[in-house]
Amino acid sequence: MIVIMKAEATEDQIEGVISRIREEGLNGHLSQGVERTIIGVVGEVSTKPQIREWMERMPGVEDVVPISKQYKLSSREFQEQATIVDVRGVTIGGNALVVMAGPCAVESEEQILSTAWAVKEAGANILRGGAYKPSTSPYSFRGLGEEGLKLLALAREETGLPIVTEVLTPEDVDTVAGYADILQIGARNMQNSVLLDEAGKSMKPVLLKRGISATIQEWLLAAEYILSKGNRQLILCERGIRTFETYTRNTMDIAAIPIIERDSHLPIIADPSHGTGKWYLVTSLALAAVAAGADGLIVETHPNPDAALKDGPQSLTFDNFQRLMDQVRSVATAVGRTLAVPPPR
Amino acid sequence: MIVIMKAEATEDQIEGVISRIREEGLNGHLSQGVERTIIGVVGEVSTKPQIREWMERMPGVEDVVPISKQYKLSSREFQEQATIVDVRGVTIGGNALVVMAGPCAVESEEQILSTAWAVKEAGANILRGGAYKPSTSPYSFRGLGEEGLKLLALAREETGLPIVTEVLTPEDVDTVAGYADILQIGARNMQNSVLLDEAGKSMKPVLLKRGISATIQEWLLAAEYILSKGNRQLILCERGIRTFETYTRNTMDIAAIPIIERDSHLPIIADPSHGTGKWYLVTSLALAAVAAGADGLIVETHPNPDAALKDGPQSLTFDNFQRLMDQVRSVATAVGRTLAVPPPR
Amino acid sequence: MIVIMKAEATEDQIEGVISRIREEGLNGHLSQGVERTIIGVVGEVSTKPQIREWMERMPGVEDVVPISKQYKLSSREFQEQATIVDVRGVTIGGNALVVMAGPCAVESEEQILSTAWAVKEAGANILRGGAYKPSTSPYSFRGLGEEGLKLLALAREETGLPIVTEVLTPEDVDTVAGYADILQIGARNMQNSVLLDEAGKSMKPVLLKRGISATIQEWLLAAEYILSKGNRQLILCERGIRTFETYTRNTMDIAAIPIIERDSHLPIIADPSHGTGKWYLVTSLALAAVAAGADGLIVETHPNPDAALKDGPQSLTFDNFQRLMDQVRSVATAVGRTLAVPPPR
Amino acid sequence: MIVIMKAEATEDQIEGVISRIREEGLNGHLSQGVERTIIGVVGEVSTKPQIREWMERMPGVEDVVPISKQYKLSSREFQEQATIVDVRGVTIGGNALVVMAGPCAVESEEQILSTAWAVKEAGANILRGGAYKPSTSPYSFRGLGEEGLKLLALAREETGLPIVTEVLTPEDVDTVAGYADILQIGARNMQNSVLLDEAGKSMKPVLLKRGISATIQEWLLAAEYILSKGNRQLILCERGIRTFETYTRNTMDIAAIPIIERDSHLPIIADPSHGTGKWYLVTSLALAAVAAGADGLIVETHPNPDAALKDGPQSLTFDNFQRLMDQVRSVATAVGRTLAVPPPR
Repeated sequence: MIVIMKAEATEDQIEGVISRIREEGLNGHLSQGVERTIIGVVGEVSTKPQIREWMERMPGVEDVVPISKQYKLSSREFQEQATIVDVRGVTIGGNALVVMAGPCAVESEEQILSTAWAVKEAGANILRGGAYKPSTSPYSFRGLGEEGLKLLALAREETGLPIVTEVLTPEDVDTVAGYADILQIGARNMQNSVLLDEAGKSMKPVLLKRGISATIQEWLLAAEYILSKGNRQLILCERGIRTFETYTRNTMDIAAIPIIERDSHLPIIADPSHGTGKWYLVTSLALAAVAAGADGLIVETHPNPDAALKDGPQSLTFDNFQRLMDQVRSVATAVGRTLAVPPPR
Repeated sequence: MIVIMKAEATEDQIEGVISRIREEGLNGHLSQGVERTIIGVVGEVSTKPQIREWMERMPGVEDVVPISKQYKLSSREFQEQATIVDVRGVTIGGNALVVMAGPCAVESEEQILSTAWAVKEAGANILRGGAYKPSTSPYSFRGLGEEGLKLLALAREETGLPIVTEVLTPEDVDTVAGYADILQIGARNMQNSVLLDEAGKSMKPVLLKRGISATIQEWLLAAEYILSKGNRQLILCERGIRTFETYTRNTMDIAAIPIIERDSHLPIIADPSHGTGKWYLVTSLALAAVAAGADGLIVETHPNPDAALKDGPQSLTFDNFQRLMDQVRSVATAVGRTLAVPPPR
Repeated sequence: MIVIMKAEATEDQIEGVISRIREEGLNGHLSQGVERTIIGVVGEVSTKPQIREWMERMPGVEDVVPISKQYKLSSREFQEQATIVDVRGVTIGGNALVVMAGPCAVESEEQILSTAWAVKEAGANILRGGAYKPSTSPYSFRGLGEEGLKLLALAREETGLPIVTEVLTPEDVDTVAGYADILQIGARNMQNSVLLDEAGKSMKPVLLKRGISATIQEWLLAAEYILSKGNRQLILCERGIRTFETYTRNTMDIAAIPIIERDSHLPIIADPSHGTGKWYLVTSLALAAVAAGADGLIVETHPNPDAALKDGPQSLTFDNFQRLMDQVRSVATAVGRTLAVPPPR
Repeated sequence: MIVIMKAEATEDQIEGVISRIREEGLNGHLSQGVERTIIGVVGEVSTKPQIREWMERMPGVEDVVPISKQYKLSSREFQEQATIVDVRGVTIGGNALVVMAGPCAVESEEQILSTAWAVKEAGANILRGGAYKPSTSPYSFRGLGEEGLKLLALAREETGLPIVTEVLTPEDVDTVAGYADILQIGARNMQNSVLLDEAGKSMKPVLLKRGISATIQEWLLAAEYILSKGNRQLILCERGIRTFETYTRNTMDIAAIPIIERDSHLPIIADPSHGTGKWYLVTSLALAAVAAGADGLIVETHPNPDAALKDGPQSLTFDNFQRLMDQVRSVATAVGRTLAVPPPR
């Protein structure tokens, strides 16, 4: 952390800042410039974020610039080697890409089973499907609840595909963890600290989506909640951010993929379905994500998107999903990656 | 809802859309233009948001435009008369402005008591203070928990000021409601549907902050969750949205104030502390909000902002809060409003 | 400027950075931390913005943080005293607020004369009106050109009101300056460096609008172009920025007003017409801007907004403008300001 | 265009809207719903954008929804076949991708010649380089002017590579067009209508960058200025938009690539250098753009980025550019595209 003093800061004010730094068990290095004085703060700053706030408020202080990243456990500096998450034998974060596919929401036994078989045949490795659905409007479909979890478990039993499904609230973590192979934390809950704590404690693999207006730094801090509970089975998911552009539901921040790969050891996958909101853009963005280095994809697929209870406009038919997989395979090869093989039944 | 068909849509596709509309128990009015056909959907569309998604996915459809607002209970069309929330005799939403003030987080008995007395003397009507604190980093201070609630209750007993405090998770609603006079739902939780449900069921007055990247429409839909549980004691709070500008913590959307007043019957207050993130901007934005028609303010105040455990840079000293109140009184008068008197002890 | 070295930076890399700093005639102060080394760059950095880019690219460098502001002539540090712009006896930047009003575009003699008289009667001090109109679509009305300038000059002659009008391109600066009292640079042209140069050379008062996605820092750098040509007659205008909210045309950044007042000596006015895009929000935002400390307003007014060739939805009728002025007067008084009196004929 | 009347709109107000529509030579189709009346406007609406504004302002009107796109000449509906731009034998918009490469700014004969040879050897087809540089700060390097154009022409003569370079102001169009093969309109000038007009009249191929906060619709409307002058040699360039994320200089909107391909016949290329602002992200985003269907790339390359006068941090060394080309070739093949061969000397 660097404290930049005002041009007109007095000796006493500079002294005050340095005393305060020492009170916190840190050290302050003075650097006297022509225009102003700067003070480098040295020590274990990253676990004391409130110090920055104190400094900003002190008389004579112009600005405070953090230089250590605030996240630690999720950073490449902390762990150089890439994290590989193992989900019933499907590994995420290695050379082979994983593809998670399935409907936005579980609707019926027939719907989820037919989808599970179809996406598996096309090459998907993991089945997605929502049982507890967050929703902007209270009048929208909110999912089948535990009944949906049971249907997902049935589909896993039949097809052998591990399942990923969203958990909305801390109280449900145990229930969802009882069925799911990966707990999904959705974009709306990226900063739901109590939920992050519980997901951390569950020791289940977690898929953490980026919040709709979260910076990459905030996302990695959310990851930190889970990691700091001792749960290292964590996968990040870029799913688009909110911008002024209204053509698409969100704007996918493809650069987040190489950035995460550079600054963090965690695997990162992409969700082009929520990232665009339009089925006819999904394949293009899936290919872009793979070309940019994503470790996998999560794609909404539905036997009959026109009749889906949720997110129909961004869901692929089985045929379109098959075509997506063919193209993904081709681009993956071009960047030196393979596709993971679907697990046996 | 209006369905806009593609220029090249066939008769069959148009027929298909109309049949589908009828299946939902609605009616479709055809309007044949030179360039394309549009279909007006007539009936109870607002409680069936998924219809829009189905329509968007049908062959021949170019776009679907909602024309009824999706929110209902929160709209002026549903209830013309302004909602007035009564909190232990302090009314919010009438001519008199309320001012909620206090520290970001409750830290100690001395801190909360001294602040309560100071803000009451300056003219505040309600005491704010966080016991459960959301936080971007797991290493930040997360509040005193129930101990903090007890200190708030003590401060209410001493000063007579009703208390508003945040609830983070559905499981805590009962506990927090056992102490608080107003349950605050923070910006990070604006779309936490389970929490909204529980706050609705509690029948306690609720203060609902706007999400950091929520549109006004989404905010009113979040309000709908609470109202639809039968709880009409609801206050909205504009606290700034996330934009590309980095000087301030957020950009306050002052226009949201007259918009809410026009489109909704719910009272709206402003939070210039989170809206700016800098104490030296708080008073200017507080005055702007009052001039634009806000029904009140919520302002962070601390006996010693330099040492605050949280949000020091945006907290006012007692002296600065007193000055803010003097200026607020003056601007309130200029726009024909009064300040509510603090409740007796 | 501070150069932050990577944790793993070598001695040679640190040495390399320091040599490079010296080559530029500057000095580097070393500060060795536990985690990493930082180098404070001392000297005339603000006029050498490219140095930052060089530093960022050097081996071993993690990040480069500017600490001096890049703008100079527009800053309060450079000039403590507020700039007061004098436009034919109307002063902008002092205690008295100025109000500029008139139609978006000059359409006819009758339109501009009737508007000029009406806004003057209501208390406006300066007449606005576009002769050269920028436009998103090539099929929109693009203004009357020099004919419009002549009509503005006629209105000035009749009413005594000075005139402000937009100049779109460097070649037109002389022509527009031949008629106008204030040259307006619109939001789309805020970074049109050649136009800024020419407006600077003209020595006419300039009204510089904030770009639709410009940070405050970029805005002051645009101001710097004009000031550095020796033209100190400069007024800033906040007119809203682009965000994800679609209810309003733009989101007015009211905080920019106290920020400019704090960091710059230049006067700042607000444009609630473009800032909201909806006539029924204009008055509320005008009052908010005045309460926050704006030095004036620019408001679109039209004899018959329903028939306006441009920006009808955000234009006030004469009656509504009169009401706005009454309320502005009241709020101005509340914050210790007066309204400037319209100049004599 | 659809006019949505308020729930409480009177017969007279509905009649008034319809009369007004007829005055404009258009027709209004009435559709009476349970909640409200809607009026479909039929006729040549797209070239009369001001009608929308008039309608919005009429009594009884709730909202006006455009359904025809406002752009025409740039749309796929107007021209189904893809536009192919021919630049001295290099074609842009066909199956073969073009790569434009070179320094941000022309600095010297040696710099531009060595770069031209290096990028040609690596497989680039067109040489980029700025002679007139826009800049946020007046203290930055603003280019060599005509001297820079002469050096570009020399490089073309030596290497055979056509040249693309930016024009900043309408007066310079003739001069720049005298040297350049493609006129670049930069992001800051995307809505500089006079410059667009002049570039249109020049009949030279134009490269139109997306404005930093421009929607796709606004971008295509800017294209419309050029096309409507009869100049159909137009290439679009996605270069990132401004969002709240600060890690990268801009956020590349990769979805814009398939959207433009779907809705417009114009070729689109991507600029990952400005799109990210960091050299170490350029290749990943270049690959993403190609995978998503871009017709080409424009990439900043410099013999010695550490010493570049502009944009060093986002420039590639010759070695890195060579590596980028190798990977681009591989991904292009994977999506069924080839790379255009560099023109002969």
